[in-house]
Order: sequence, then structure tokens, then C-alpha cells
Amino acid sequence: MRTDRKNNQLRDISIDINVNMHAEGSCLISMGNTQVLCTATVEKKVPPFLRNQSVGWITAEYNMLPRATGTRNQREVNKGKPSGRTMEIQRLIGRSLRAIIDTKKIDGYTITIDCDVIQADGGTRTTSITGAYVALKLAINKMLETGLIKRDPLTDQLAAISVGISKDDEVILDLDYLEDSSAVADGNFVMTKSGKIIEVQTTAEEYPITDEQFLEMMKVAKTSIIELCEKQDAAIN
Amino acid sequence: MRTDRKNNQLRDISIDINVNMHAEGSCLISMGNTQVLCTATVEKKVPPFLRNQSVGWITAEYNMLPRATGTRNQREVNKGKPSGRTMEIQRLIGRSLRAIIDTKKIDGYTITIDCDVIQADGGTRTTSITGAYVALKLAINKMLETGLIKRDPLTDQLAAISVGISKDDEVILDLDYLEDSSAVADGNFVMTKSGKIIEVQTTAEEYPITDEQFLEMMKVAKTSIIELCEKQDAAIN
Amino acid sequence: MRTDRKNNQLRDISIDINVNMHAEGSCLISMGNTQVLCTATVEKKVPPFLRNQSVGWITAEYNMLPRATGTRNQREVNKGKPSGRTMEIQRLIGRSLRAIIDTKKIDGYTITIDCDVIQADGGTRTTSITGAYVALKLAINKMLETGLIKRDPLTDQLAAISVGISKDDEVILDLDYLEDSSAVADGNFVMTKSGKIIEVQTTAEEYPITDEQFLEMMKVAKTSIIELCEKQDAAIN
Amino acid sequence: MRTDRKNNQLRDISIDINVNMHAEGSCLISMGNTQVLCTATVEKKVPPFLRNQSVGWITAEYNMLPRATGTRNQREVNKGKPSGRTMEIQRLIGRSLRAIIDTKKIDGYTITIDCDVIQADGGTRTTSITGAYVALKLAINKMLETGLIKRDPLTDQLAAISVGISKDDEVILDLDYLEDSSAVADGNFVMTKSGKIIEVQTTAEEYPITDEQFLEMMKVAKTSIIELCEKQDAAIN
Amino acid sequence: MRTDRKNNQLRDISIDINVNMHAEGSCLISMGNTQVLCTATVEKKVPPFLRNQSVGWITAEYNMLPRATGTRNQREVNKGKPSGRTMEIQRLIGRSLRAIIDTKKIDGYTITIDCDVIQADGGTRTTSITGAYVALKLAINKMLETGLIKRDPLTDQLAAISVGISKDDEVILDLDYLEDSSAVADGNFVMTKSGKIIEVQTTAEEYPITDEQFLEMMKVAKTSIIELCEKQDAAIN
Amino acid sequence: MRTDRKNNQLRDISIDINVNMHAEGSCLISMGNTQVLCTATVEKKVPPFLRNQSVGWITAEYNMLPRATGTRNQREVNKGKPSGRTMEIQRLIGRSLRAIIDTKKIDGYTITIDCDVIQADGGTRTTSITGAYVALKLAINKMLETGLIKRDPLTDQLAAISVGISKDDEVILDLDYLEDSSAVADGNFVMTKSGKIIEVQTTAEEYPITDEQFLEMMKVAKTSIIELCEKQDAAIN
Repeated sequence: MRTDRKNNQLRDISIDINVNMHAEGSCLISMGNTQVLCTATVEKKVPPFLRNQSVGWITAEYNMLPRATGTRNQREVNKGKPSGRTMEIQRLIGRSLRAIIDTKKIDGYTITIDCDVIQADGGTRTTSITGAYVALKLAINKMLETGLIKRDPLTDQLAAISVGISKDDEVILDLDYLEDSSAVADGNFVMTKSGKIIEVQTTAEEYPITDEQFLEMMKVAKTSIIELCEKQDAAIN
Repeated sequence: MRTDRKNNQLRDISIDINVNMHAEGSCLISMGNTQVLCTATVEKKVPPFLRNQSVGWITAEYNMLPRATGTRNQREVNKGKPSGRTMEIQRLIGRSLRAIIDTKKIDGYTITIDCDVIQADGGTRTTSITGAYVALKLAINKMLETGLIKRDPLTDQLAAISVGISKDDEVILDLDYLEDSSAVADGNFVMTKSGKIIEVQTTAEEYPITDEQFLEMMKVAKTSIIELCEKQDAAIN
Repeated sequence: MRTDRKNNQLRDISIDINVNMHAEGSCLISMGNTQVLCTATVEKKVPPFLRNQSVGWITAEYNMLPRATGTRNQREVNKGKPSGRTMEIQRLIGRSLRAIIDTKKIDGYTITIDCDVIQADGGTRTTSITGAYVALKLAINKMLETGLIKRDPLTDQLAAISVGISKDDEVILDLDYLEDSSAVADGNFVMTKSGKIIEVQTTAEEYPITDEQFLEMMKVAKTSIIELCEKQDAAIN
Repeated sequence: MRTDRKNNQLRDISIDINVNMHAEGSCLISMGNTQVLCTATVEKKVPPFLRNQSVGWITAEYNMLPRATGTRNQREVNKGKPSGRTMEIQRLIGRSLRAIIDTKKIDGYTITIDCDVIQADGGTRTTSITGAYVALKLAINKMLETGLIKRDPLTDQLAAISVGISKDDEVILDLDYLEDSSAVADGNFVMTKSGKIIEVQTTAEEYPITDEQFLEMMKVAKTSIIELCEKQDAAIN
Repeated sequence: MRTDRKNNQLRDISIDINVNMHAEGSCLISMGNTQVLCTATVEKKVPPFLRNQSVGWITAEYNMLPRATGTRNQREVNKGKPSGRTMEIQRLIGRSLRAIIDTKKIDGYTITIDCDVIQADGGTRTTSITGAYVALKLAINKMLETGLIKRDPLTDQLAAISVGISKDDEVILDLDYLEDSSAVADGNFVMTKSGKIIEVQTTAEEYPITDEQFLEMMKVAKTSIIELCEKQDAAIN
Repeated sequence: MRTDRKNNQLRDISIDINVNMHAEGSCLISMGNTQVLCTATVEKKVPPFLRNQSVGWITAEYNMLPRATGTRNQREVNKGKPSGRTMEIQRLIGRSLRAIIDTKKIDGYTITIDCDVIQADGGTRTTSITGAYVALKLAINKMLETGLIKRDPLTDQLAAISVGISKDDEVILDLDYLEDSSAVADGNFVMTKSGKIIEVQTTAEEYPITDEQFLEMMKVAKTSIIELCEKQDAAIN
């Protein structure tokens, strides 16, 4: 049972922006002990499948440093390929961001968001998404300032959070690593500031859950997303 | 707009069992033009991370034949690794099945479900899951008959279905390839016969969707899962 | 010793055509319990080494589904590359087909034959070749019908069969898996309907064999090839 | 048309033995301008699939140096895997040698034959096999001398040669690179000194050939194998 | 020509220790704009080649985050293997550290130093080595405190620095990226606090250099190493 | 302690040129029992990063045959990638050669030097460099003779040698394998005929060494380089 904060309470959040001298946008985001470095890179190119379509592209990559975790995890480069988990997460980040951008307005450009987990304590994928938005927004601002693009391509603002169901059937928000390891179900919610749904991924790891439980998870997520978006706004401005 | 069936209507389903002479359980499942060959292999071994824990394991692999699709897709073996999409799908299939099995009751055994898509026309991952259950159930039955295990390890029955939101904002069930390509949002639901939730994955590809839309998708999915479970029962018995 | 059929007798053969809705040509061929799905894909492109030479190309790929065999074989994609056996077989299939086609008459096109072994019980490579011819012929017919090409590029008809020498020194035709496992020598013959030789591959696995034994193997093969070609004709027409 | 030697005449052969200070057996074999360095390595181990079976193993590896050929060929290590051609050839070499050895008499040992093509001018695979026998024989002799094994495990002697059919329908022996490039059919024959067959691989690259042509190829090969075996004997003794 | 500091002057250095909650030792080291995160992981295991030899092992891995550099560099995991440069650097780091440790005194343990370049502006390999020493020292201290080992295995203290020769033939210390790009020769020196040599790597990229130039480079390096070691001491204590 | 030659004495050297019928330049170089086959390939192309810059390129590849060594080493192609050691060495060879060539004078051409170690007994990388110069020089001569280039692009002549410090603190030149295995420090020096420095790589494997030791190593190297250059000249002319 959680003792240091309420079941529906987020961990401490900090977002430091412009932490990288090279990137067009960047931030170091912490949620509790989870720390992710997010950088946005703007390049004048589009992937082959988008050539001659008058659109741009947003993609993301995700990686954990070897000692981000309690025991050292082997670098994926030494296994010759990214793991299924890594690919799943980076596909999720990229897909989420593409839902709030009008790619016609970044015609000819690819924006790559790199999320490198410096330290992990649960919720690395949702923290990555929340930080990715900040890095993206900063890069977009720079593109507008420097005249690379004329109109703001962002159509909304998003953040992400994890919600789980604990062994004693409580809905708990923003799980740390220990909570996540013992949860019976685990959900990741990507939503807009206005409460709309971009991605819902819920997995019952131990046994199936009821509709009521699921709806409660979604409700708790929705409230916390607003708080996260406010933190983003405070960091950017 | 869909004309050949109702928005909440499944495509024609057929499930032929025991189609492979070698596998412990197998079926060829068709949903409309989508055809998946599912085989279950029982092996006396457990993966290294489960050694000495008195449990068994269930895992799954997914693959598309090169010409399952309208244009030929290159074999992943020639790229040197499975794609992110393939890994995501096979992780989903395995995770879903593990939610309805008591792995203590298959102690010492690994059951591998192979889902090979012979022909694709949308919904290959959900069709794979629905067929995977049948192959698994048949293999479990054989293990019980031959005395490899004493008690039925299955704790529930599951099936899966896709639901989407079309360009004209209709909730449509069991999308074929063309419908899927133009949908603004796409969800995959894995549920038990009794209506509980195992996996919910919803993606707003084009723009964020509302709570109401999402809940309508979930409702339509739930009804169809019962029908799919009945088809499974009819095929097995 | 073989009891269910004569030493020079083929197993039951069936060839179902047009089993795939997407492929330009396709068949499911069975020889006894061996089943191979063959599809032909026509694409408007030629490999780099043939650019600007006014010719087309035929190539083939071969694969076994994991549970085609008695014990499950690991997918080659998970080892990162095709095995030597797979490469050897798919090179053989492609080379054989190229011997009966005038590639100038398919200028600008590549035809890819995929042979996926659904179930294996010996003779998968020869069954693949026999089925590959059918899929190729159907695709060529379609190219002629739709006007992609003007003249029939096929110069002959071919089929393939395995012949072995059993432990008791009998020449046996069309070996199943058990027979193949215990044979002292094993040959694969690809021949034309008119009895000409395209490929001869004979391996003495246990000890060297005599000229006489080899010539007897070739003779038995030749007779069976005619029968196989007639089955192909019956299926196509 | 061949002018520098008769159609059924071998190129100049030389075999220098013990050219490597480390290997248990070694030779540098030349057939015309084709040069292959063959080494035999004896190691106290057997591959996993032979554990506890009281047998040894013989295997072979084949490689071409980058500038063995007229234009430089890229190292296969830089492509990440051996080519299909390389795998096909090294499987052939190993399989051939296993046909003349009683692996029970090398129980517990693996002998690896490495064939590295220093310079290529046609016939590299057959030259490799002929040289591999010499390296193997020398290693076996050393094993007997040093008492690693008690009885000679070799049951026969073998060599290999290529035979082709030229554009003007002549059967020609021991093709150099130019002859090979323009041949309409190409055969590789591995035979014992006593004229028995170990491997026959014949490919009609351009169009099918007749029985008579094939039998003539085999006859010419057989005669030359005796000559090659005599060269081997002269080099070893 | 360098204007912001003297030719033999180091950039600003900062070393923050214990920046990672999981690692046994860690620091974030900055030299000018170059930032490297160094973590030391202690594991109860030794590599296979050291089994049963009563010694431990130290190894290192090096990596650059994609946007550590001015233009984004592709992750090596997506190319399937570490680059030659990465392997060269991580071998250098590990080799250097092994020269100042008595591996008998860490019997049974492997210490892995991970150097992840967060931001790059020249000198990433030497900065990594200087930081690696700090992380290693902290991990050793922890092993001593917790009683994993009894005696201090470190035999010396080391640091590393780059020295180059500029286009106008000046010897310059601690090159940033721009200086490094235009240097005619480039050297990396790993030395002990007492001035002894562990590694010297000097490359004349443009044209050969004289003995005198080389000796001047070495002299300048030696002086700066003492300063670096003092910074290490200040950070650790 | 070395008994067969003086501490500052080279092993026997032989350099046979034009040993490969295909290569533009080639030699087989022996230093004691170490033998390396060096070939130079001239191709009309430049790597992508040099396009449109009016320069050519020199690169090198290094490889050891499996039984070049006392115990057989596995081919790197079977591990899927070159080892760190191989990459380090071939980068060194290429970099060294580029320091003595004016790439503008080979505009449009790439010269690839392949160094394949036929037999190894210490000093394979330095022997490779000394031989590589000979192969390169011969290829350049051919390019001048055939008019591919107009002016000699070579700006100097180079050779390479290893020097070490033995367990009894002696500086020893040109180490064989046994000497190298027990040395406490090991250096590789690439220098010009006129005594200038191209590459210095010194590693203290066991414990740090003093300046005096290092300078003695460099002095011994320098003298031997002149002798090596004279051997090169004798072989070429």
C-alpha cells in the first residue's frame, strides 16, 4: 500500500529546458526518480515513403542507458538490434506526437525526438512522452522564429501518465518501479490538455479486470494529464 | 460507408481445427478474407528466467507470408530482424494468453503459439488471438488426455476484435484492410467470454477522439467477443 | 522396407490453384503429407545487376513454417539470417525456373516465387519446384491476358522429384521424412516434361555409391517427372 | 573454343604440403591460376548435436580473399553473414569428406578444414575439395603418429573436378573462369579414387541438356579424378 | 588561433559525483561543453576467459547520445553493431583502467564502466577516461566499505587529455571540436598522477610530424594530467 | 630473455612482389614467421562523403585466416561483424597511408589495401603496414604507367614496427608472439623513411612505464624503420 502520497497523486515533477547546446529543442524531465533527456532534432529531409507528398514527418527513438536500472542492462547495440520493448515504446511516442501535428505545415522537414532514459524508476515511457512534447514545442518555436516554417503546425497539447491496479485492488496513479512490478493491471494513457484520447493501452498482467476498474483508471489519468500540461506550460514559458 | 454488412456486424468466420499433423493443437481461422494458421507446440522446457520456479510458460510468434498482402512484403529474415510491428503483435498475443492461464499448472512446459498469416485483409492481430486461443485449448486438452498435466490450467476464455472510427465518425466493427486504412482511430480489444478486459489498445491516428467515442467502441467490441467465443466453442467441440 | 506403395511409385498428389486472392499466380501443392503454398508475384522492376539489359528476372524464396516439422524449428528471422539449407534450396528453385524461360520476353518485370512449407514430410524442395512451376505458369498466363507481355516466355515445362537409396540398397522414389532420414544416398532431379536435365544433385551421405545405382536413380526420376507434369497440366487447365 | 589444352585435359596442378606452421595438416593447391590454401585443425570437442554419441565430426569453411577475383569482391564479414554461395560450397566440402570417414574412429574430435581461395580462376570449389582431402589426410596421419587415435578413420580417397558444356556443345574438363562464364551447363563431381560417386551437382544454366551430354560429362570427370588422386598421393608421400 | 585561453590551458572542468541512484559509483564530468556521464557497475561474475583464475575484471563501454553532436548521429543499434570508433574508444578506456588495478584484489567481480556522452565538443574519449577513474574509485570505495573486498586494488591514479598541433604549428592542449577538426596532428595521453605513461596515441592526420613536436605534445600533456588528478581528488573527497 | 637475436634486431624479412595476378599491386611479406598477403585494388569511385571534392581515397581492410594462429580463431563473418581489434587495425593502416599521399592527385579513385594474415607470430599489424606500402607503391606505379594519373601522389615512404618492454625491463624490437604475450608494455610505431612520426601507439599493459623507457622504445623503432624502408626499396626495384 502506498504511504508517501495519495493513490491519485503524481510524483514530484521537474522539467529543465534547453539543456543541450546542439538540439533545436531539449529538456530533462524528472518524475520522481525517473529522469529522461529529450532532444528534438530538425532536419531538412523526409523519409522515402513521404517523398513528393508535401508533408513533413515526426519520429521518435527511445533508449535506456545501461545503468538507468537497478541492475545493469546490456546495451542493445551489443545484441545487434533494439528489443521488442524499445521498438514498441518508440513507435508509441512517435505515433502520439503525430496525432497533434499538421504535417503539411512542416513540409520538407523531419523532426526526430530522442528520449534517453538517464535513470529509471517506473513510467519511463509516459515520462518520455510528456518530455517529448516539451522538446517538440521548443523546436517548433525555433522553426517559427527562424522562419523555417510560417504557421504553427501543432493542433493540440498532450501528456501521458501510467495508472495501475495494485494487488489490493486500488487504482494508483504514476507508479514507481516497485509498484509497477507488483501491479495486476497497468495502463498508459496519452491524452490532450482538453481531455481527449490519443492512446489508451491497458494490460491485465495477472487476471482480467472489470469495466468499472478500467473506467476508474481512465478517469484518474484524465485529471492528472491537466496537471502535467500545466507543468509543461510553466517550463516552456 | 460500409454497405455489405452493418457497422456492428462481424465478417464471416470459419475455424478449421487440427489442420496440422505435427502440432499439439492447430486451427486455420478466417475472418472475411483474413486467414491465419495457428499452431500450438508443447515442449518440455522453460525459458532461463523461469528456471526453478515451478511454473510453465506461454509465448507466441507472429509472421506474415510475403504475399499475404496486396503488394508483396519482403521477408523479415532478409532484413535480419523482426520489424517493430511484428514484435509488438507477438508480445500482445503472448501476454493476452498468459492472462487466462495458471502457469503453475503447466509446470515445466512451454507452449508456443505460432500465428502465420496466410492471407491478410485487416484484423490480422485480433484474428490471430482468437485463433491462438483455439490452438491453445486443443493443446491443453491433449496434455490433459495424455496425462502430461493433471488439472486444466485455463482460467477463462478469450477472443479479440478490432473496432474503429471511420472518416464519417461512425463506430465500425471488424475492419477490413480498406476500412482500416482510412479510419481516424483504431482499437484492438482482447476480452473474456464473461466481458472482462485483458487488453485495450486504442490509437487515434488522425486526431484525438472523445470519451464517448471510445466508450462506444468498447461496447461494440464487448458484444462481438461473445459471438467469437461461441464460434470457438463450436469449432472445438 | 516400403510397404504402402511400390519403390518407384509417387505419393498422392494434389494441386489446388488460385488459393491466394492477392498473388498473380498461386497453388497449394501436396505430395503425401508434404504441403507447400506457392505464390508468384509480378513486379515492375529488375534487380540492379540487370538494369538496362532488356531482360526480366525470376527469383524464388523458400521457408518452412515453424511447426511444419515434427518438432518445432526456430524461425530463421530470430537467428538473424536464413540458414545455409534455406539459401541452397531457394537458389535451386530460382535457377531451375530460369532454365525454362526466355527472360527477354519478360523485359522489365521480376517474378518472385515464394514457396512456404505449411507441413513437411520429406521432399519439400522438389515439391516446391513442382508447385513453383504451376504458380509461375498461372502468373505468366495472367501477364499474357492483361497484355503486360506479348509472347509466352516459357520455353519448356519442368517438375522435380527426389530419389534415394535405402539402407537395403533399394532405389526408392519420392521419399517421405522417415525414408529420407535413413537413406544412404539422396538425389534431387529437376527435369523437363520431355526428359531433359535441368538440375541433378546427388549426395552419398553414408558411403559412395556406384555408377549403376546412380543411373537407376536417374531413370526412375525421369519416369515420374512425366507423371508430375501431367498433374500440373490437369491442375492448370 | 579451347586452344591451350585438350577438352578433356586438366590444367597444371601443384600441391605444396605443410605450408602452415600451426595447422595439423595443410597444403597450398593450384589448378592453373586457381590457388587455395587448405588447413586442417584438430580440436578436442564435438558439436552439441553429437554429444554423448561416441563419434567425432568433420566440417569445412570456405572463403575467398577480396582480391582473389578480377574485380575486388566485398568481404562477407562486412555484409554481416556468409553469402548463399559460400554456405553452399562449405556444406558441400564438409559433406563430401564425411562420406569417406568413419567418425566413430575420431571419437571426441572435430576436424575443421579451412579452404581460403588466394587466387581464383574457375573451379574454386572443386580445387578446395581436392586440397581439403590432402590437408585432412595429413592431419589424420599426425593424429595416428601422436597417438590421438588408434586406427585410420579414412575409408576411401576422393577428389573433385568441374566439367561443363561449352556454347558450341563440347564437353570440357576443368573450366577456367572465362570458360565457366560462357558455359551452357556446369557440373561438379566428387568421386573416389575407385570411381564411385560421392556428389554429383549439375546445373543447366542456359537450357536443359540431354542424358547423353550428362553421361559424357560424368565419364570425363571420372577419368580425371584418378589423375587428381595420383597428384594427391605424390604430394603426401 | 586560440583566443579564449592559452595554448597549454585546460577548459573549465566540473565533476559531480553520485549522480545516479543505482550505480555503485558515478559522476557527470564536463570539460568545456563536453559532458560525459560515467557509471561504475559492480557485478559478481567474471568473463569466461578468466574463470578459475582468482582474478576479477574491469571493462568499459562508450556511447554517444544521438544529439550529443552538432548534427544528429544515427544510433549504432540501428546499424546493428558498434562502429570501429566506438570499439576503439571503449577498448582504450578499459585497457587504461586495468593498468592501475590489481585484479587479484577484486577476485570474482567485474566492474563495468559506462561512459555515455551527453554532449560533445571535442575530447570525449579523454574526458571519459578522466571521469571513468572517478566512478571506478567511488565504486571501489563502496566495495571496501561494504566489505566486498578487503584491500584497495588500485595501484595508481590516472587521467587523460588530448593535445594537438594546429594548422599554424602550435601545440595546443585540450582541443574543442573545431580545433580538433582542423588540427594536423592529434594525440591522446593517458598518464598517472606521478607522470608515468599508460597510453600514448598520436596520429599525424595531415602530414608526418617531427620528434620535437611530439615531445612537446607529451610535455604539455604531462603537466595537465596533474591538474586533472587534483580535480578528481577534489570531487571525490 | 631473447637468445636468437639482439634486443634491437629485426627478424628475417622477405617481400615478394606481384604475387597476385588480378591486383594492381601486391606482395607477400614475411617478418620471421608472420606472413601477410597485401593487395592493392584501384577502383574508379570515391566514397559518398568525398563526392564532388576533387579528391581520391585510400582505405584498408585487415583479416586473419582462421588458422593463422596457434589455435584456430573463428571467422568473424560467423560472428556477424568484425571484432574491435580488426576494426582498430584496419583503421590504423588506412590512416597511416593517407598521411603520405596527396589525395587530390588520385582524384576519382579509391585504392583499397587488403592485408590478409596467412600466418601469425606477432607484429601482424606493423607487418601489414610495411607490406601495404609496397602494394600501394606498385599500384601507384601502374596508375602512372597506364596514364590513370599524371603525377606521383606519394609524398613520403613509411614502414611500421613493434617495440616492447620485456618482463625483465629490456626494450626489445620486433616481438614475436611469445615475447608479445609476456611484455609489460607494447608500442607500434609508424614512421617515414626520414624519421618523422605518423602514428605512435603505446600501451602499458601491466603497469605504467617511465618517460625514459618510452623514449628508448621510440629510438629503437626509428632506427629499424630505415632498415625496413630499404627492404621495401629492394623489393620494389
